[in-house]
Amino acid sequence: MCDGCRSGANRKVRLRVVGMWVYRTPGIPDGDFIQSDKVPGPTKEEIRVVTISKARLCEGSYVVDVGCGTGSLTVEAALQVTQKGRVFAIDNDEEAVEVTKNNVTKFHVQNTVEIICGKAPEVMSNLPKVDAVIIGGSASLREVIHAAHQKLKKTGRIVINAILLETAVKALDELKKLSFKDLDVAQIFVAKGRKVSSGTMMLARNPITVISATKM
Amino acid sequence: MCDGCRSGANRKVRLRVVGMWVYRTPGIPDGDFIQSDKVPGPTKEEIRVVTISKARLCEGSYVVDVGCGTGSLTVEAALQVTQKGRVFAIDNDEEAVEVTKNNVTKFHVQNTVEIICGKAPEVMSNLPKVDAVIIGGSASLREVIHAAHQKLKKTGRIVINAILLETAVKALDELKKLSFKDLDVAQIFVAKGRKVSSGTMMLARNPITVISATKM
Repeated sequence: MCDGCRSGANRKVRLRVVGMWVYRTPGIPDGDFIQSDKVPGPTKEEIRVVTISKARLCEGSYVVDVGCGTGSLTVEAALQVTQKGRVFAIDNDEEAVEVTKNNVTKFHVQNTVEIICGKAPEVMSNLPKVDAVIIGGSASLREVIHAAHQKLKKTGRIVINAILLETAVKALDELKKLSFKDLDVAQIFVAKGRKVSSGTMMLARNPITVISATKM
Repeated sequence: MCDGCRSGANRKVRLRVVGMWVYRTPGIPDGDFIQSDKVPGPTKEEIRVVTISKARLCEGSYVVDVGCGTGSLTVEAALQVTQKGRVFAIDNDEEAVEVTKNNVTKFHVQNTVEIICGKAPEVMSNLPKVDAVIIGGSASLREVIHAAHQKLKKTGRIVINAILLETAVKALDELKKLSFKDLDVAQIFVAKGRKVSSGTMMLARNPITVISATKM
């Protein structure tokens, strides 16, 4: 039984308040992350969960999070790979690096995460081989996918979250060129319920295309 | 490092072929489950992953899967709670119980799962207290939600996957009546890419409303 379960309900609530995620499953509520006006909000819970699942992580996995933003995927990945693994969080924006740092500290995953400010293709050239590369955003997608192909171990996973249609198509093209296998395209539309006086109103979120594949 | 990661790429592929899910994260591809013409197909991968995440499972958690069908949620839950936990898979249909049994065996989670054929409210009355109840389907939703309320520990989680609008509304009503907290409604629309000669065609799947809440 994990610490969270064994310790009972009250401790679980208390740990959550101080920023611990006591569960084994991913899915930290969006509002639990520290946010900043200058950095895009966290990858939304449901999209984040699907992204992490497509990365197929193990305890001990090495992961790169390209364009870590607020660090929500970095934190979730770090919780999955545990202290036996490693997450390299890369962002070219200093403000994003700062917010990621704050969330990594809040969720107590400092020992698993290395945060690096810089351009992803350059930063990645200095990293060890990894089991998964998650690409949340990047100005130079083609170069990042090629860098990921270089750095991924055999059967390693790549996951690309595309907001733009153009990003999705470009990603698919590059993955095919590099002979990635098990290509999966999942377009996810989420609407969330908001309580209003007369019932539950569904508010649409922007669709995200989650593209994933395996390096063979 | 987990067995899957340590053992390297080839062993990972081999284990996958014999039905082992070597990853820590949920998200077994739909096609990996044994299916039957007489039982509805598995809860689709992306919905399954979101469902498991909303249940907020720990190693050692006790879980009930109401209307287990092919057993895809049962298997994913069992992999999360490990042998320290327990999953009670309930279905009133003997064919479903048979298919669940086959998938539980395929994914080597027999030591974690107890499969029970019967009406959920009656079966649940004989179970110990649990950490999460997942309701994939039930003819008697109201009774099942009340039974779940009885069986859930404090801070225990309930997750209801509704295909029908009526199910979603009925579930929300009951959860409110029983003073469940952190009510979350997430309507998930997934479209999956299929390769056709001229590109990638997006095929829509039916939207599912995932309702989750915490017992306080």
